Amino acid sequence: MTLGPNRWGKSEVRVSKVFRGDDEDDFLDLTVQVLLQGDVAAAHTEGDNAGVVPTDTMRNTVYGLAQDHLTRDLESFADVICRHFRAKAGIDQTTVTIHENIWLRETATGFVGGQTERRMAKVARGSQESISAGIEGLVVLKTFGSAFEGFPKDEFTILPETSDRVLATSVTATWDYATRPSDTSATWSLVRRVLVDRFFEEWSASVQHQGYLMGEGVLEAVPEISEISFRLPNQHHLPFDLTRFGMDWEGTVFQPVSEPYGDIYLTVTR
Amino acid sequence: MTLGPNRWGKSEVRVSKVFRGDDEDDFLDLTVQVLLQGDVAAAHTEGDNAGVVPTDTMRNTVYGLAQDHLTRDLESFADVICRHFRAKAGIDQTTVTIHENIWLRETATGFVGGQTERRMAKVARGSQESISAGIEGLVVLKTFGSAFEGFPKDEFTILPETSDRVLATSVTATWDYATRPSDTSATWSLVRRVLVDRFFEEWSASVQHQGYLMGEGVLEAVPEISEISFRLPNQHHLPFDLTRFGMDWEGTVFQPVSEPYGDIYLTVTR
Amino acid sequence: MTLGPNRWGKSEVRVSKVFRGDDEDDFLDLTVQVLLQGDVAAAHTEGDNAGVVPTDTMRNTVYGLAQDHLTRDLESFADVICRHFRAKAGIDQTTVTIHENIWLRETATGFVGGQTERRMAKVARGSQESISAGIEGLVVLKTFGSAFEGFPKDEFTILPETSDRVLATSVTATWDYATRPSDTSATWSLVRRVLVDRFFEEWSASVQHQGYLMGEGVLEAVPEISEISFRLPNQHHLPFDLTRFGMDWEGTVFQPVSEPYGDIYLTVTR
Amino acid sequence: MTLGPNRWGKSEVRVSKVFRGDDEDDFLDLTVQVLLQGDVAAAHTEGDNAGVVPTDTMRNTVYGLAQDHLTRDLESFADVICRHFRAKAGIDQTTVTIHENIWLRETATGFVGGQTERRMAKVARGSQESISAGIEGLVVLKTFGSAFEGFPKDEFTILPETSDRVLATSVTATWDYATRPSDTSATWSLVRRVLVDRFFEEWSASVQHQGYLMGEGVLEAVPEISEISFRLPNQHHLPFDLTRFGMDWEGTVFQPVSEPYGDIYLTVTR
Repeated sequence: MTLGPNRWGKSEVRVSKVFRGDDEDDFLDLTVQVLLQGDVAAAHTEGDNAGVVPTDTMRNTVYGLAQDHLTRDLESFADVICRHFRAKAGIDQTTVTIHENIWLRETATGFVGGQTERRMAKVARGSQESISAGIEGLVVLKTFGSAFEGFPKDEFTILPETSDRVLATSVTATWDYATRPSDTSATWSLVRRVLVDRFFEEWSASVQHQGYLMGEGVLEAVPEISEISFRLPNQHHLPFDLTRFGMDWEGTVFQPVSEPYGDIYLTVTR
Repeated sequence: MTLGPNRWGKSEVRVSKVFRGDDEDDFLDLTVQVLLQGDVAAAHTEGDNAGVVPTDTMRNTVYGLAQDHLTRDLESFADVICRHFRAKAGIDQTTVTIHENIWLRETATGFVGGQTERRMAKVARGSQESISAGIEGLVVLKTFGSAFEGFPKDEFTILPETSDRVLATSVTATWDYATRPSDTSATWSLVRRVLVDRFFEEWSASVQHQGYLMGEGVLEAVPEISEISFRLPNQHHLPFDLTRFGMDWEGTVFQPVSEPYGDIYLTVTR
Repeated sequence: MTLGPNRWGKSEVRVSKVFRGDDEDDFLDLTVQVLLQGDVAAAHTEGDNAGVVPTDTMRNTVYGLAQDHLTRDLESFADVICRHFRAKAGIDQTTVTIHENIWLRETATGFVGGQTERRMAKVARGSQESISAGIEGLVVLKTFGSAFEGFPKDEFTILPETSDRVLATSVTATWDYATRPSDTSATWSLVRRVLVDRFFEEWSASVQHQGYLMGEGVLEAVPEISEISFRLPNQHHLPFDLTRFGMDWEGTVFQPVSEPYGDIYLTVTR
Repeated sequence: MTLGPNRWGKSEVRVSKVFRGDDEDDFLDLTVQVLLQGDVAAAHTEGDNAGVVPTDTMRNTVYGLAQDHLTRDLESFADVICRHFRAKAGIDQTTVTIHENIWLRETATGFVGGQTERRMAKVARGSQESISAGIEGLVVLKTFGSAFEGFPKDEFTILPETSDRVLATSVTATWDYATRPSDTSATWSLVRRVLVDRFFEEWSASVQHQGYLMGEGVLEAVPEISEISFRLPNQHHLPFDLTRFGMDWEGTVFQPVSEPYGDIYLTVTR
């Protein structure tokens, strides 16, 4: 038997970067794939790994190169990664594909994600009667104005305290109308506006704190609403430890992590 | 053994509606769930269906009531559905939940979907060298300016010809740069602009025709691009046949269908 | 500008077929894609659809040919579809890809789907205390032993009564332990066994009826369980109307439909 | 405004465990959710985190407790986690939910995942003619018989060499028939059998090595097949570092990681 075409690489490397500015921050959220081809026939047929760059190294390289080389010019960053691996012995071909998950600027340090956002309406008639509304998939992220400190520690605690972090969540909020507003669509838009503003404008000490401030704002703005409930999954962007590669960590390169995630539920009432 | 709490209904009923106006159309895209509770113990314990409103009937009812009662006031439409079923013998409780998939107006009859849109960049170095870019998940819909007529017929053809239809697709486009543009981000934004404009501004006789016009526009606008390839899955919004219920079909109520879908691939070169 | 490579087709055509036997039935569940290439340049550049076989016709053709030609030899069925379209004027190339969703035989007319099945365990401690267990994603289908008749009709009812249908669901069941069984894993396996047996062995007049019989069986078999709750989404396999093509419908070709779906919830207690 | 019901926790904590035995290994693959309720009103209203157990600590606790307390009795493990958190100051209620992703034993150290496995058939007719077949979603895992050593190192390499690891992948394989076998279904079953056997029986030095051995086996077993291509995404189960908590790591507790993943492509020909 003969080895035919082959390649190997790392897929779904998620990397985010904050560009700190004087007046405003910028933010990039990428998913990167690195694929290599080269002189690795012996790896397949004889189990000789001398030429097999580990895919874990590819992952690390993406983060390591991101600190100095990642800008909005994604093609240039892809080229930097290609040339890095192309320079290695036995590597004939490198292909780097980057997908940018788009975030729209809302404030100087606040962004709304391009995810699927949906309006919800719910009516019950019969022995139980209610009119509720909601929003799902409102994805928001801020590069400033969030901390998490002063929490209890035990033998399993390794999380460092932080006075400044990237905070992101996909807001699911549901609220009950004590009395029906005259224009439910306008009211929904107003609630959305308050949720977004409170997320970006209010400093928070935790997701719980942020959620309470958002709920408080909605109840203040819309008298017909009796209570509002939130589910706020924490979309973690973790600092990626570049010091393992002999680099300084400059506070700009993060690893978005899908699972596990902090999962916060709360209700605010009058 | 005893029957405890129970309810039944129809989930994921997808309905869209076009509101024809003098100057512009409006468009709503909903997913509806209907749940009923009532006197159906005998259905569970004895197989007596006398009280079991079929979930297929619930689905039909959503479409039937949508023609006269669906507006942007989703809570009112949910209420109409609730009261319709509440009035039936043996139904004690009805709950209707509606999710609106949000579309943003782009032109008088054109809308961009709130789905996840991603920028793509791809670089290859080695024995093969290339710089490519792309867009994925650009969801566009128009309520005017699309037809499909004059196609061949055989024994399996039942599709009627139409000179006016709702056309929607999720654009995936990938293009190759013969020479690298000086600003790849600005070029990407320009390509996106041309794709959107050509979709909304150009009348088309088919998805193939629409795609060619889009590709032609991109090649005209960006001299560095040598060719552009598309995948254009047809996101069908099928007229829902209300005449089966003794109603007229007024050309406003549609059924969005996820599967199967028309799947169109084409490349435009210089 | 010039048209480059292009093709068009229908993706995600879902078709299922029951093979009636003397001793047992067989069952196939497929997802088919048809892609054509041919002389359709004018469709792209001039909007002339004379050569554009509609993708809706491709869908219909898959169902139409399935009645006489679909067996477990998927490659032969793919070949039949290829040759059907290849024989048409202007079609140069046809490619048919079929994916079989695997079902494992459980009884003469019962099958378990190859979907992700998960065991669930849930414990609460504090002001509320409970031990619960459950199963999710238990996908079951039977080609015999299910009916739906005698339901109420109104102006929106078009569903025909049926004394014999394909019934499929993805069982989610959760049960509470009044007292903890000595071996929770063995108890879980026993509950799964009873659920499967009751689904396949008991004739049902509705999903509600089937669910009640399943719950009753579990409560009879496991004294530690105080109550069991179900969510039973109906995975519809709808008869595909071949009479529109001048064919008889022989009761073998069905269209699996993902959305919308009947959604049944019930609890059985002691 | 007043704080209503609230809780917080960690969702989608993925943990796997190998139970080493004399004759055979056992393997568990879980997804855990921990939710707490307690005296944290001040966290919401004043940003005081004194009572807010970090969700990162909850994650770590699941792994830390898994080494000594996780068995197939999932309810007992859930109970251990509940009691651990219930003992902390200010925690009134704990709820732990575990989902087990089911693996079926195939050999003493080999398991097949309960994921959706699909058979594929593909036929092309016209200017290009071919008959191909394939399998997708064949998920296999072994707790013995896989290494990864002797790979090149650079400044970004932190992966340790290992002579013994958990290896898992979701096999996608596609093969071309030079001549059509008389029974394509029997041939497909034979190929599947060879793929499974070669994965479990052959020791491998890498995914590439494993894939080559699998392809070699298929070509030896089925003379009609001219070549076979694989995509083998590495479903990583990473050793979870318990030494950070002052514990020994006993080689049993792993963290399954969905992204990023090693992505291996190869073709074996005659």
